Amino acid sequence: MTSTSGQALVRPATSDDHDAIWSILAPVYRAGETYCIPTDISREDALLDWFQTPFTAFVAEVDGRILGTSHVGRNRPGAASHVANASFATHPDARGRGVAKTLVAHAKTWAREQGFRAMQFNFVVSTNADAVHSWQKAGFDIVGRLPAAFLHPKHGYVDALVMFQDLTGGQP
Amino acid sequence: MTSTSGQALVRPATSDDHDAIWSILAPVYRAGETYCIPTDISREDALLDWFQTPFTAFVAEVDGRILGTSHVGRNRPGAASHVANASFATHPDARGRGVAKTLVAHAKTWAREQGFRAMQFNFVVSTNADAVHSWQKAGFDIVGRLPAAFLHPKHGYVDALVMFQDLTGGQP
Repeated sequence: MTSTSGQALVRPATSDDHDAIWSILAPVYRAGETYCIPTDISREDALLDWFQTPFTAFVAEVDGRILGTSHVGRNRPGAASHVANASFATHPDARGRGVAKTLVAHAKTWAREQGFRAMQFNFVVSTNADAVHSWQKAGFDIVGRLPAAFLHPKHGYVDALVMFQDLTGGQP
Repeated sequence: MTSTSGQALVRPATSDDHDAIWSILAPVYRAGETYCIPTDISREDALLDWFQTPFTAFVAEVDGRILGTSHVGRNRPGAASHVANASFATHPDARGRGVAKTLVAHAKTWAREQGFRAMQFNFVVSTNADAVHSWQKAGFDIVGRLPAAFLHPKHGYVDALVMFQDLTGGQP
């Protein structure tokens, strides 16, 4: 595959990408401001979680360098298995290069192709305003608010949001 | 421990209770109208899930007979680990005996004692009106609505609700 210079290209991740993915996830998890993940999680546990069934992990490359990662999969089993879930993380150097936007667009397309009818984010920290804003621009609605559900290291107890997007375009 | 005749008594479950718990869960899961659990889940997998860390399983006995069960535990790890989650199921013979009400009250008390600051139900099928109503009576608010997130065997795609209750009484 070729990509236009400077453009983000998303592809499935492999074990060869573990170092690059962990270099992106580690500072995000250590900061503890956006994910419900123990801030001291080990590299091994973090990668197990990121690649865990039923999730598929992806990376976004810009000019051959991995600057972002996502994992996408079924949010719940059984009679809710038509709803996908996704998580995203980007490297600080990804800023302004459309990496996050490309990862979200890819996740939606991939989920649709897999037959998912909707995508849900279960827990978006309300103080993560950039993410909330970019997901709203990507078509997600805030469908729930969990009061004081996240203990932010700087702001104390803050709300978390549930965000949701229909992917069917009204098809039955 | 003694209990007044006809009154539900809640105690931690043990492996000796597996048969009684499965006899309550099986018809609920097989019906597929209220839980995001595969309708063909095995007894073994269902009990593993019910007793799974970080959850603690309980049973409610009336006159020595197990008529209900709950499991209560941390909803999410890390900076959200102050929020508990709980699930409940009752035997058809429990109707009108206050078993569900007793289980919910017990779950709240137990969660508070464990230091949880709130309790969240992630996925309440909106057509499960009796449950929604009884949880509202028990102090839970509807804080989110997931559109068409549950494929009901009779009603097709129906909404699911997120319900939440503060347990701190406003304490910091």
